[in-house]
Amino acid sequence: MSSVFGNKLKVSVFGQSHGAGIGVVVDGFPAGEQIDMDRLDAFMARRRPGGKHATKRRESDRPRFLSGIEDSKTCGFPLCVVIDNEDTRSKDYKAFGDTPRPSHADYTAFVKYGGNADMRGGGHFSGRLTAPLCAAGGIAIQILEKRGIKVGAHLLMAAGLYDLPFDPVRAGELDKLEGKEFPCINDAVAEKIKLKIEEAAAQGDSIGGIIECAIVGLPAGVGEPMFGGIENRLASAVFGIPAIKGVEFGAGFACASMRGSQNNDPFEIKDGRVMTRTNNHGGSLGGISSGMPIILRAAVKPTPSILIEQDTVRLSAMVPAKVQITGRHDPCVALRAVPCIEAVCALTVLDMLIEDGRI
Amino acid sequence: MSSVFGNKLKVSVFGQSHGAGIGVVVDGFPAGEQIDMDRLDAFMARRRPGGKHATKRRESDRPRFLSGIEDSKTCGFPLCVVIDNEDTRSKDYKAFGDTPRPSHADYTAFVKYGGNADMRGGGHFSGRLTAPLCAAGGIAIQILEKRGIKVGAHLLMAAGLYDLPFDPVRAGELDKLEGKEFPCINDAVAEKIKLKIEEAAAQGDSIGGIIECAIVGLPAGVGEPMFGGIENRLASAVFGIPAIKGVEFGAGFACASMRGSQNNDPFEIKDGRVMTRTNNHGGSLGGISSGMPIILRAAVKPTPSILIEQDTVRLSAMVPAKVQITGRHDPCVALRAVPCIEAVCALTVLDMLIEDGRI
Amino acid sequence: MSSVFGNKLKVSVFGQSHGAGIGVVVDGFPAGEQIDMDRLDAFMARRRPGGKHATKRRESDRPRFLSGIEDSKTCGFPLCVVIDNEDTRSKDYKAFGDTPRPSHADYTAFVKYGGNADMRGGGHFSGRLTAPLCAAGGIAIQILEKRGIKVGAHLLMAAGLYDLPFDPVRAGELDKLEGKEFPCINDAVAEKIKLKIEEAAAQGDSIGGIIECAIVGLPAGVGEPMFGGIENRLASAVFGIPAIKGVEFGAGFACASMRGSQNNDPFEIKDGRVMTRTNNHGGSLGGISSGMPIILRAAVKPTPSILIEQDTVRLSAMVPAKVQITGRHDPCVALRAVPCIEAVCALTVLDMLIEDGRI
Amino acid sequence: MSSVFGNKLKVSVFGQSHGAGIGVVVDGFPAGEQIDMDRLDAFMARRRPGGKHATKRRESDRPRFLSGIEDSKTCGFPLCVVIDNEDTRSKDYKAFGDTPRPSHADYTAFVKYGGNADMRGGGHFSGRLTAPLCAAGGIAIQILEKRGIKVGAHLLMAAGLYDLPFDPVRAGELDKLEGKEFPCINDAVAEKIKLKIEEAAAQGDSIGGIIECAIVGLPAGVGEPMFGGIENRLASAVFGIPAIKGVEFGAGFACASMRGSQNNDPFEIKDGRVMTRTNNHGGSLGGISSGMPIILRAAVKPTPSILIEQDTVRLSAMVPAKVQITGRHDPCVALRAVPCIEAVCALTVLDMLIEDGRI
Repeated sequence: MSSVFGNKLKVSVFGQSHGAGIGVVVDGFPAGEQIDMDRLDAFMARRRPGGKHATKRRESDRPRFLSGIEDSKTCGFPLCVVIDNEDTRSKDYKAFGDTPRPSHADYTAFVKYGGNADMRGGGHFSGRLTAPLCAAGGIAIQILEKRGIKVGAHLLMAAGLYDLPFDPVRAGELDKLEGKEFPCINDAVAEKIKLKIEEAAAQGDSIGGIIECAIVGLPAGVGEPMFGGIENRLASAVFGIPAIKGVEFGAGFACASMRGSQNNDPFEIKDGRVMTRTNNHGGSLGGISSGMPIILRAAVKPTPSILIEQDTVRLSAMVPAKVQITGRHDPCVALRAVPCIEAVCALTVLDMLIEDGRI
Repeated sequence: MSSVFGNKLKVSVFGQSHGAGIGVVVDGFPAGEQIDMDRLDAFMARRRPGGKHATKRRESDRPRFLSGIEDSKTCGFPLCVVIDNEDTRSKDYKAFGDTPRPSHADYTAFVKYGGNADMRGGGHFSGRLTAPLCAAGGIAIQILEKRGIKVGAHLLMAAGLYDLPFDPVRAGELDKLEGKEFPCINDAVAEKIKLKIEEAAAQGDSIGGIIECAIVGLPAGVGEPMFGGIENRLASAVFGIPAIKGVEFGAGFACASMRGSQNNDPFEIKDGRVMTRTNNHGGSLGGISSGMPIILRAAVKPTPSILIEQDTVRLSAMVPAKVQITGRHDPCVALRAVPCIEAVCALTVLDMLIEDGRI
Repeated sequence: MSSVFGNKLKVSVFGQSHGAGIGVVVDGFPAGEQIDMDRLDAFMARRRPGGKHATKRRESDRPRFLSGIEDSKTCGFPLCVVIDNEDTRSKDYKAFGDTPRPSHADYTAFVKYGGNADMRGGGHFSGRLTAPLCAAGGIAIQILEKRGIKVGAHLLMAAGLYDLPFDPVRAGELDKLEGKEFPCINDAVAEKIKLKIEEAAAQGDSIGGIIECAIVGLPAGVGEPMFGGIENRLASAVFGIPAIKGVEFGAGFACASMRGSQNNDPFEIKDGRVMTRTNNHGGSLGGISSGMPIILRAAVKPTPSILIEQDTVRLSAMVPAKVQITGRHDPCVALRAVPCIEAVCALTVLDMLIEDGRI
Repeated sequence: MSSVFGNKLKVSVFGQSHGAGIGVVVDGFPAGEQIDMDRLDAFMARRRPGGKHATKRRESDRPRFLSGIEDSKTCGFPLCVVIDNEDTRSKDYKAFGDTPRPSHADYTAFVKYGGNADMRGGGHFSGRLTAPLCAAGGIAIQILEKRGIKVGAHLLMAAGLYDLPFDPVRAGELDKLEGKEFPCINDAVAEKIKLKIEEAAAQGDSIGGIIECAIVGLPAGVGEPMFGGIENRLASAVFGIPAIKGVEFGAGFACASMRGSQNNDPFEIKDGRVMTRTNNHGGSLGGISSGMPIILRAAVKPTPSILIEQDTVRLSAMVPAKVQITGRHDPCVALRAVPCIEAVCALTVLDMLIEDGRI
């Protein structure tokens, strides 16, 4: 029940970090979509571990397509992607069943599954499970792009350093992000953030960040009132990515401090179409798209795996204990969460368009 | 598709602001639950319009129970509550079909429903639709309380003024909120906020706010990884309340600026049970409840209905236009959103407990 | 969870037979559909009790539309219909909590709801709950007809007497059914069946029957493989009507005795389009509509409420007992199930067309 | 959307007959269930092709478990089973895109997917897709058995020859079916049916059949009124198996010819518990289990793949044509459908028990 989302486009994620393989089944991609597999690979590479600012675990993460796509074209049937697990070092994770790591799911999984969960490497809670999500989402992104809809995200903030935010009215900065090695619009900020990440890593510590995502080109009129709206659907999907602790749209939490006269977003005619002046509303009014860019921001907590010794408890004895994490970890998981957020946003928007009969 | 949420506990909201009636069907309440109807009425009264700091529209909002409850006891069958609409002044809303009000759903509804939507008074998008949600949620709150689970919220911030936040580890302030006329823990802050609301109202303007909600007593182990987690489910429900533009859990957006060593939440043994030191995680790890209070905050935008003339467009002519809103409006919709957030949180948590076989 | 069905068109039924009212919420009707309310009333009248061959309980069953429809036009928002209960004689049903009536839901409801269920008049299990289904389905039928899709059913068999079956290739007999007082194509058969019903009623007994339903004009290509197919969806909906014990499509159970060479349904070009020779397949191949009429048959058990004394048990003492049903009952519930089957089939097909983006 | 079913236990089937692999993801198996892998293999062997009365296609169908099970024990996370495709002869199927085979999904898939579907070997509509269903269902059967619930089916009728039906009150014949090479209770009937199958096969023809399935030991009180009932859920799942054209419960279509006094099922005290005399009701009253065996029968059409030349059309030219099927096919697909029906029934019942909080 847990790892399935979507209405007409059902995404079902499976796998444990150190099991035989991980993957995803996506039921509902439209038939006849030509997929550029090199672009898909490039998209997945953005999430892949191994860079200087990411975990040292190396994996090819090469997806094998078992179904749903033939000769790089979707065939209308459920798509299954499998990524075999390689380079697993399970012994790194042995001890945590009894001494749960702070801010990880070790303890809650222990309570829920009664010790049966395969929690090696974080099990099904591992950030690694976002690899198949990116395979699915990378396909969704390509399907959307053919309809003139672009989805892109960047690291808006880390270590107190802010990248250039998207212009909320046009989000034209999306184009500048393509091909970037580091997901910031402003390269100078990127360099500074890299230094902060290296600094935290050197201290065995980690940092968090804020990701900003824009969906541009979505026509007005998509979404449903109350519980089937743009915000409900996107927020629910984005919280599916590990480490996300907050989601906001448009002016978001800032609008709570505004007056109506400041936050209200007047309609205007621009380029012969109806637009709004500020996009404080973030592209959704009453849960329905306004034709303006969807702008969302997600708070990513600092990677809970730090190398500094931490306090915990020994569950079997119900006594205080210490836990020391070794192994390979991202000092800033927000970096790799950037394409993941693009992926789930694209899958969600594609689902909504299919539901709406537009695709 | 839009106005239905829940898995085992299905909540289906209906009605337009100025139609014959509004209401809700809830399929899945457990049988045999004795409901204190006076307490339910008191709960609904907290959302009801008419106070000095709320819209002048007066409605008894007295719910009629058509099914699902007999002699104040749930009977296991779907519950239907109807609230008849009274005191509607539809002419106040006539003009907005062609000149959409900024930051309302007038324009997106026009695009989606092609002019067929009954948008008098905001139609199905009206905040009035939260009245049946509160009827349903007020019942859920009582069912949860019998199991030792409390749900409560307060206005954490408005006009830059902050109420006392919940102690994240105990959230004992919940008890102090009961019976309060104004939903702040600190009465002095309440008085100051009231003045700010009156000031904005006097200027024909409005203000936003931040609501903080705590769910205390939820046992550890409830929720599912990835897309069926505590955060996904609660966020999706909370965004179902009009005017919410952001949701965060635990440390939320603040954790994005922390180091792992600051944000990580060590486990401790307290009172013979496993607890955490900070509850920065907000009661959910890996989507599963940790036994600590669930703490969420929601950003509420300022009421978009302001009496100041605003820019808009005339859709039929595609030219700039002005719109002047009259009628009766809440200068701070966040006030009335407080019990609404309690309602949808209670319904969501009750659904998750039923799904989990605990109720 | 029980009384909700549909994907994009969510139908949520509520009410107990002897409660304040019964009704339905339908979320997802397309906006802007003009409904002929007199025709809707005529459709509902076909199900209404009171005729010579039906229960003596008299009810106006006049639906009140609380939302979703204004000036006889759907407005895109959830539609709520309420039918107030009148003429209830609850004392007729007092005794059955402890001495469950054979082949009724008294016993299973007792086990499930632990005595809390409001089972007066059969509670939520009463055939009366099909009245709101017919209100919803009658609207769906009109929406489908505007798209050239007709849904109609007749009593194919009762008391061993067979009405003329639909020609499976054209189902042109649908037109002859309109306006019939008794739902048989062949009036002579109708008269004979009426006598059999009267005979059974005079003996305090009841009879069953088989209903045949045709859906004509559904374009090819609607439906999904495996679990989202025409048969899965329609069967699941049809079993939602009380007393249905079997559902078959096309040749149905008869095909189990055929050879492939007999049952296989060759394709042909007729009238410039692809048709099949026999329609043994019942309009669905691989779960997807073929463009041929959908033909389904449903077995309706004899009304379990008979006036003959029956054996049962006294649950409180766990001893054998007798039960004597009095009150007013349909001697052939299949008669009134005819429009109910049309209703749920129309709702299901409309849902599938909306999901498919065709409406 | 199509190939997913279940509520708390989500089953998502993927694969095309001649693609790289087929499989299933099951999200929601309880954690900590020890699975006897040899028994699972034996269960899957019953469906496997290669016997004298089945297709000549040989496949090991050996399932590879990628996730969800470690050391033969479920770990609480989604289970993924993959079966690689071997021994595919795609050229056997080349021609059918333009000349659809009668009573296959070739034509409806062509209309739905516009020629993009990978229909080699029947694509996703192939009976081969039931192999992963049996892997999932075989696990569900073992989980149910530990709770005292048995699921078993047999070939009740083929070529007009009837096996001994289950005693509807006890269904004790279930035990006799274990280990049978041919799924009939009565071995003499089995031998006669085999001859009929061989006879049809020798003539390049095929036969249909009726399968009877019993679920014994299900406690009373499981299921929901109206649309979430035992019959709705099971029927919807059973129609997911290719070639099923009818489903009935208890007395089924026969009850349509009975009087109420014949069909009604008096309650009795036997062995200290409440039972019914006839089980004409098939174990479900009002959609809720009565504690009696669930008895269902499914009509299986004769394999549409016959070696006799058949009429069809050439879609590209819209002219009549002939089609000649070669390749390897089951002369009686009902045989292999027996374990498939057990599988989907077990999955459905397990889902309902999990939803009900009993597992």
